[in-house]
Amino acid sequence: MFCIERFMLHICRHEITGVITKVGSNVKNFKLGDRVGVGCLAASCLECEFCKNSQENYCDQIQFTYNGIFWDGTITYGGYSEMLVADHRYVVHVPDNLPMDAAAPLLCAGITVFSPMKDCQLLESPGKKVGIVGLGGLGHVAVKMAKAFGHQVTVISTSPSKENEAKQRLGADYFLVSTDAKQMQRGKRTLDVILDTVSAKHSLGPILELLKVNGTLVVVGAPDRPIELPSFPLIFGKRAVKGSMTGGMKETQEMMDVCGKHNITCDVELIKPDKINQALDRLARNDVRYRFVIDIAGTSKL
Amino acid sequence: MFCIERFMLHICRHEITGVITKVGSNVKNFKLGDRVGVGCLAASCLECEFCKNSQENYCDQIQFTYNGIFWDGTITYGGYSEMLVADHRYVVHVPDNLPMDAAAPLLCAGITVFSPMKDCQLLESPGKKVGIVGLGGLGHVAVKMAKAFGHQVTVISTSPSKENEAKQRLGADYFLVSTDAKQMQRGKRTLDVILDTVSAKHSLGPILELLKVNGTLVVVGAPDRPIELPSFPLIFGKRAVKGSMTGGMKETQEMMDVCGKHNITCDVELIKPDKINQALDRLARNDVRYRFVIDIAGTSKL
Repeated sequence: MFCIERFMLHICRHEITGVITKVGSNVKNFKLGDRVGVGCLAASCLECEFCKNSQENYCDQIQFTYNGIFWDGTITYGGYSEMLVADHRYVVHVPDNLPMDAAAPLLCAGITVFSPMKDCQLLESPGKKVGIVGLGGLGHVAVKMAKAFGHQVTVISTSPSKENEAKQRLGADYFLVSTDAKQMQRGKRTLDVILDTVSAKHSLGPILELLKVNGTLVVVGAPDRPIELPSFPLIFGKRAVKGSMTGGMKETQEMMDVCGKHNITCDVELIKPDKINQALDRLARNDVRYRFVIDIAGTSKL
Repeated sequence: MFCIERFMLHICRHEITGVITKVGSNVKNFKLGDRVGVGCLAASCLECEFCKNSQENYCDQIQFTYNGIFWDGTITYGGYSEMLVADHRYVVHVPDNLPMDAAAPLLCAGITVFSPMKDCQLLESPGKKVGIVGLGGLGHVAVKMAKAFGHQVTVISTSPSKENEAKQRLGADYFLVSTDAKQMQRGKRTLDVILDTVSAKHSLGPILELLKVNGTLVVVGAPDRPIELPSFPLIFGKRAVKGSMTGGMKETQEMMDVCGKHNITCDVELIKPDKINQALDRLARNDVRYRFVIDIAGTSKL
């Protein structure tokens, strides 16, 4: 066990970066001064098949870093504190070239889109046609990763105003307005893999139609109401809708290293702790590009 | 091209068996007197990647044997006729040990459940835990196949009255009533693969929960209204919902051969053509176990 302080934390409080100030005597893989990150996972059983295979995120004893009651009865507050004690097994190294603020959201947004990309062989097989639905906190990192891995990227969004952002700043190749039936018709059967990052309720039908036969759509957006899944585009295209939730620890470190190699970070707006309420108001209006990061330690020059 | 007559046909008219009475001069793989079957497929483009790979069922030029207007403008009536002219590329051999009436529904019901089983490696990897949702025309064949392939089979049904049928007659190992929350709770995270054969609208949530992490549910039932897909069991279990529609011709012949080897047929009720209206009435009341087959040629001893 060891402490991290001077951390930046994302407003959802489970995307935390910081510097190590104390290290437990049994910890071998971290030392004082290391730049590290902590994501959603605080603990897991360490004994089940998932823990043994570094898929701790699917352990059914999983303990989250935030918004929960830990095994010892304490409340987990995630990054909303000046110091964090973390089990070394749920901590990753942050590559030296990545700024601590822009790296923080990789701990959830980043791994959430990286894990299904890896599952869909997008890391080792460039040249695929990849769709990203929604251009927000998850979507914009997904576009950066998919481009870095050598794919042709299509952003699918309800907002025509995001086309410039998607293409010119993030490097997407194509942009489809999902409410434009003609555009969606032209895009039918063109994509190999789609990542759907949208949390709002929406039908998967028109999005599924964009997939080639045998294509895969991965849901990472977690709408709280059931998704509408029309059976015909699923069946007639032999398509798959998969779920994916963050990633295991080994995979999270791999994601960090890959982001270091390709210099991928999230687009963030850094704020001081006294601006949290304003940030929450803006967040409610969807007015952020794409994450607020709070400089708890006050080490940045705001 | 060649003709088949003396065929039995399923009431949905695309599960047809018969005996060849005429063979085109270029046809090498069939001869007079052969026992053969024709399913959903009447023609496809023969040039696309799917046709070249014997996945003709996903060709976007596909022509069905029934309920459509063929390329030459004629209406396709499927098996509702005394003779059928079929392209030899969409015809399969029926193994000698399978009765023509009980083999007929294999041409759609059989291949519809066989194809996803093959995709999910159930043919070569026995010992899996397989769930079959719905015990009807598709479900009962799926149970027979899954047992023949060496798996532990759980039938999931809304009808408690089907338990005996499922276990004692069809050989299922377990039976879950999907409306019984306690039973469904006990079944959580126990199954590797589920085939959902139900066409009525239903939520996939409780069914998905039965799957292990990384498990796959294949939808073959084609509800006409969108399926309710809750994101949480999908995401937190890294599960997949896949679609599958019948099968290609090579695969359909393989299915027939496998059924011959294991002596798998469908449970049918054979009727004469003059009983079609009564059969349709009973079908509307779901009063058939599990398919009506019409003896158009009048060769059976009814």
